[in-house]
Amino acid sequence: MLYLIGLGLGDEKDITIKGFEIIKKCDLIYLENYTSKLQCSLKELEKLYGKKIIPATREDVESDENAAEDDEKSKNPILKNAKTKGADGKQRNVALLVIGDPMGATTHVDLLLRCRKQGIKTEVVHNASIINAVGIVGLELYKYGKTTSIPFPEKSFQPETAYDVINLNKKNGLHTLCLLDLKPLENKFMSVNDAIKILLEIGEKRKVKGTENPKETETANGTERKPIFTKNTFCIGCARIGSDNLIKAGKAEKLLKENFGNPPHCLIVPAKMHFMEEEALKMWK
Amino acid sequence: MLYLIGLGLGDEKDITIKGFEIIKKCDLIYLENYTSKLQCSLKELEKLYGKKIIPATREDVESDENAAEDDEKSKNPILKNAKTKGADGKQRNVALLVIGDPMGATTHVDLLLRCRKQGIKTEVVHNASIINAVGIVGLELYKYGKTTSIPFPEKSFQPETAYDVINLNKKNGLHTLCLLDLKPLENKFMSVNDAIKILLEIGEKRKVKGTENPKETETANGTERKPIFTKNTFCIGCARIGSDNLIKAGKAEKLLKENFGNPPHCLIVPAKMHFMEEEALKMWK
Repeated sequence: MLYLIGLGLGDEKDITIKGFEIIKKCDLIYLENYTSKLQCSLKELEKLYGKKIIPATREDVESDENAAEDDEKSKNPILKNAKTKGADGKQRNVALLVIGDPMGATTHVDLLLRCRKQGIKTEVVHNASIINAVGIVGLELYKYGKTTSIPFPEKSFQPETAYDVINLNKKNGLHTLCLLDLKPLENKFMSVNDAIKILLEIGEKRKVKGTENPKETETANGTERKPIFTKNTFCIGCARIGSDNLIKAGKAEKLLKENFGNPPHCLIVPAKMHFMEEEALKMWK
Repeated sequence: MLYLIGLGLGDEKDITIKGFEIIKKCDLIYLENYTSKLQCSLKELEKLYGKKIIPATREDVESDENAAEDDEKSKNPILKNAKTKGADGKQRNVALLVIGDPMGATTHVDLLLRCRKQGIKTEVVHNASIINAVGIVGLELYKYGKTTSIPFPEKSFQPETAYDVINLNKKNGLHTLCLLDLKPLENKFMSVNDAIKILLEIGEKRKVKGTENPKETETANGTERKPIFTKNTFCIGCARIGSDNLIKAGKAEKLLKENFGNPPHCLIVPAKMHFMEEEALKMWK
């Protein structure tokens, strides 16, 4: 049997009682620690749960993603163990702990699918995710459009999707939540400052190249093209949402100078805000 | 001090350890039970938490919403108690338990604001919300657009917002999560079937009246206007997400005949699905 258990966004005590009780009866406990960052250590988790926790790599979780339905040669250690019986002849109980909510990532939907194909029972224990906890910032969750993410730019890969999503949402009067890339195993976390720089650079690149699509600009008077994201764009930088919540709002150029501290960070680019939303944002001053 | 504590989507054991420990030290515990429906009783909550729980009405939570900053005459019992000192001279600890995550509703953002104005300390304990737990259905959370809700139609109020949101999202290739109205105190919960009927009626109304906006239709060959939501529209009906998850996908007319059982329900109207999403949906067959 495989349990996917959300740990929420804070520390070891953000697990649900349901999740905690399941861990207590599990034979093997994995922690997926390459997709986000907890506000506590693996040791603190182990201490509270009274169990040994095995860090799971991306390979551990995702290997054999395209294995055949009845693949007995599966190399995925998590599924392999969840399928095995112990020395007592009883089915082994395996837990995969996931930061936030397990159902935020397609990888886990895929795991559930593979379990179904291989006859492994599953149970999901939900928890808070950045997608809902971001409500604490004060903008209405109903007024967010599509969520996007900003990856670390690489020489051969400089995606501009986030810029386009912000544009699409803004045109429809909707706020955009940008999730920022992280590589915990390399201790590399994108900061709010990095994210703003990346968006400004995309804007500059489109302007210089003259490739900024007219559809992707706000036309002021029919002649001037106004880029979507400039140093004057109002945005909200957030750090450690669901834990100690550092939230600062202001023009991009102002936020560039702020220090948001430890990860994870995210960036919100709001559309026109309602009076009540503006009021709520003042909470964080 | 006021604690806003999320209970998640299932039963009494879906509270986090953090939330549980806070309840243990609280003098007064309210439960907001008019916005959703738990899968357990108040008695079961009381038994696990070992505390008396006071059901809070909408009036209790929202009264004095527009009170002045230093309003000493506040009639809001929750804030009043959170401001009071006990017989021992210590500040009282008050908890408001909320189904799902407390930050899903603007009402609670407003409560935090009023606390700040009145000098009451606050802490939020997050939990799962339908907004993130719906990921279990198998559609990518990144591919949802704006969330909408479908209220019970009344003689003088028959809003068509959900229809327009579905249209907007579909045009942008995004799925729509429709939250369905509920009035737990009257034991009135909108079913997937009700919601589909309401959407079909909106479609019919627009067609008959000839008011269906050309912008809101998909044009097949430039002459024929195709309504957004018909009995052939593929949709996904869900019940008790985050608990025992009943999920059925198919054409609207097929889902109309299905029984989804106990509330709460929600309805997803997907845009064009990715192959992996179609695969994932098969999990629920």
